[in-house]
Amino acid sequence: MAIGEIKELPKSWAMLGGDGPESYTQNSSYQKGVVDASMEMVDDGIMEKLDLKSLAVEHKHHAQFNNSAALSGFQVFFNDVATNDFNTLFKALHSNEKYFSAGLPGTFFGRLLPRSTLHFAHSSYCLHWLSKVPKEVLDSESPAWNKGSIQCDGLKKEVTKAYSAQFQSDMSTFLEARAQEIVGGGLMVIITGGLPDGVLMSQAGIGMYYDLLGSCLIDMAELGVISEEKLDSFNLPLYYSSSKEIEEIIKANGNFSIERMDSLSHNIWKTSRETKIKVSVTGGRAVFQGLLEDHFGREVAEKTFENFETKLDENFSIIDGAAHEHIDHFILLKRNVN
Amino acid sequence: MAIGEIKELPKSWAMLGGDGPESYTQNSSYQKGVVDASMEMVDDGIMEKLDLKSLAVEHKHHAQFNNSAALSGFQVFFNDVATNDFNTLFKALHSNEKYFSAGLPGTFFGRLLPRSTLHFAHSSYCLHWLSKVPKEVLDSESPAWNKGSIQCDGLKKEVTKAYSAQFQSDMSTFLEARAQEIVGGGLMVIITGGLPDGVLMSQAGIGMYYDLLGSCLIDMAELGVISEEKLDSFNLPLYYSSSKEIEEIIKANGNFSIERMDSLSHNIWKTSRETKIKVSVTGGRAVFQGLLEDHFGREVAEKTFENFETKLDENFSIIDGAAHEHIDHFILLKRNVN
Repeated sequence: MAIGEIKELPKSWAMLGGDGPESYTQNSSYQKGVVDASMEMVDDGIMEKLDLKSLAVEHKHHAQFNNSAALSGFQVFFNDVATNDFNTLFKALHSNEKYFSAGLPGTFFGRLLPRSTLHFAHSSYCLHWLSKVPKEVLDSESPAWNKGSIQCDGLKKEVTKAYSAQFQSDMSTFLEARAQEIVGGGLMVIITGGLPDGVLMSQAGIGMYYDLLGSCLIDMAELGVISEEKLDSFNLPLYYSSSKEIEEIIKANGNFSIERMDSLSHNIWKTSRETKIKVSVTGGRAVFQGLLEDHFGREVAEKTFENFETKLDENFSIIDGAAHEHIDHFILLKRNVN
Repeated sequence: MAIGEIKELPKSWAMLGGDGPESYTQNSSYQKGVVDASMEMVDDGIMEKLDLKSLAVEHKHHAQFNNSAALSGFQVFFNDVATNDFNTLFKALHSNEKYFSAGLPGTFFGRLLPRSTLHFAHSSYCLHWLSKVPKEVLDSESPAWNKGSIQCDGLKKEVTKAYSAQFQSDMSTFLEARAQEIVGGGLMVIITGGLPDGVLMSQAGIGMYYDLLGSCLIDMAELGVISEEKLDSFNLPLYYSSSKEIEEIIKANGNFSIERMDSLSHNIWKTSRETKIKVSVTGGRAVFQGLLEDHFGREVAEKTFENFETKLDENFSIIDGAAHEHIDHFILLKRNVN
């Protein structure tokens, strides 16, 4: 039985590597919290929905050829971009005897495994990342030009349309690739950043967080540290979909049945102000430092994050008071049998 | 169809990582030469010996369930110890579309994959590495104490016996693990360092090379840089078997039939003196620096290699004149159908 852990980013930059104080490994408690929140749903999904009958061919094969009806073992594939720090992952994994581990380098917007070889896939908080920023939002000639914002904040219809089209294209590509890899009757869990129906990104805590990061970059431009052109050519390759939107894409793709759709709430919002700010700052760095360095250079990224830390502390009550409950999506899919 | 590239070391140290001027990646032309020398034999082996009939169950499965008789694709697993630099490998591999690549971290002296999932395995110049130095050769109370040498040079019967027993144990463990992973009718190619029947390690170029490295460590002890105890507690975890010896172990294991045994000659011995010395020095560092640093510390390792470079240059005609032809083993095995 093959299990895929699909978690990666589409660009050449990656989460901060190593296991030092600034690493993603040490600063991804927020992402871990989303996984924790979904754990029971995943267990339930496997118990109730994984159709062992569709794996009967494999059982029969073993019974006939190896005199054993047992599964051949669990093979887990950990996927991320080729620039991810797999070395640190592998050092942490070694000598686990409950399953066999392999690293799978490459973008999840392409094929990663041979046809019909995966029985359970887990896309772990990554499908809100796009393969690229839609080019219209960086184009001053386009009605979708996103001047003054670094994200799809939901306030400008044309911008939202461009981001939404990119998300639809990327999500369809992802589903098509996984549909080829997952066996008929196999399951896929998707947990991804999202928005409750009717809530705009600029009204959600996560959207305010990105707006605050954007304001720090605007400060850099106003101080003359970066040019206005440099600022305008930057947007985040992120899109937080509504459950309705993602449901329509899955149905249009047609390779999977939706077994469960739910929303996730994060325990971090019940912790102290201090903890929340700390996780927001260090977690943000571990994820976005590579992206900002790639576009603005190391020094600007460093200054931006210093400014961001101060601003987060000053403005945290606004973010803290915004919508946080039932934000992220939990989706359980079953691959149709051809 | 799953293909395993098995190439690793048994200890926590590994080949020098990265792709800089001292890295294993840039300094493994010798090892590549062994692979090159075996290429035609590998191709012939697959053409003549890979029994597609035994994979008919898989074909039938696809024909019935996916309306296609084609293979589902090639999945290649690259194995090495968990401390190996997989990041550099993955960056070099990305976007190859002829096969799907995965990294498989862990010792090959244990199970790495689920049962009956591998169709072709390639053990690429690594089985002359032992899982550990046999403890008798480091024990001053034992008749197998290897005082004055860092390797199994073949001159002392008890030492050879201890090393040979370790090799037999390790090789059997390796064969047992692969036997569980490889499907009935599947093939395994082993290319490994070896000795022609009747030739002692101290008579072969490779043995002289290790003796010279050992003499550099003895120099360190004589200069008082390291203690005699430190020197005596070091031996190389390497054993170069005769073809007769390795054949007996494979037959005793009983899971594989020997389809071909041959010897390999290396093209490097036809190149210039300068090239041969360069490859010997930089290649030796890329492989053994980690091992020496682990035991003696960074500074001693550095000084030893500086001394080694001078001595290699002075003594190269002796090494160059020794036995080089038909040294390494090529073995093609087929997994018995249970």
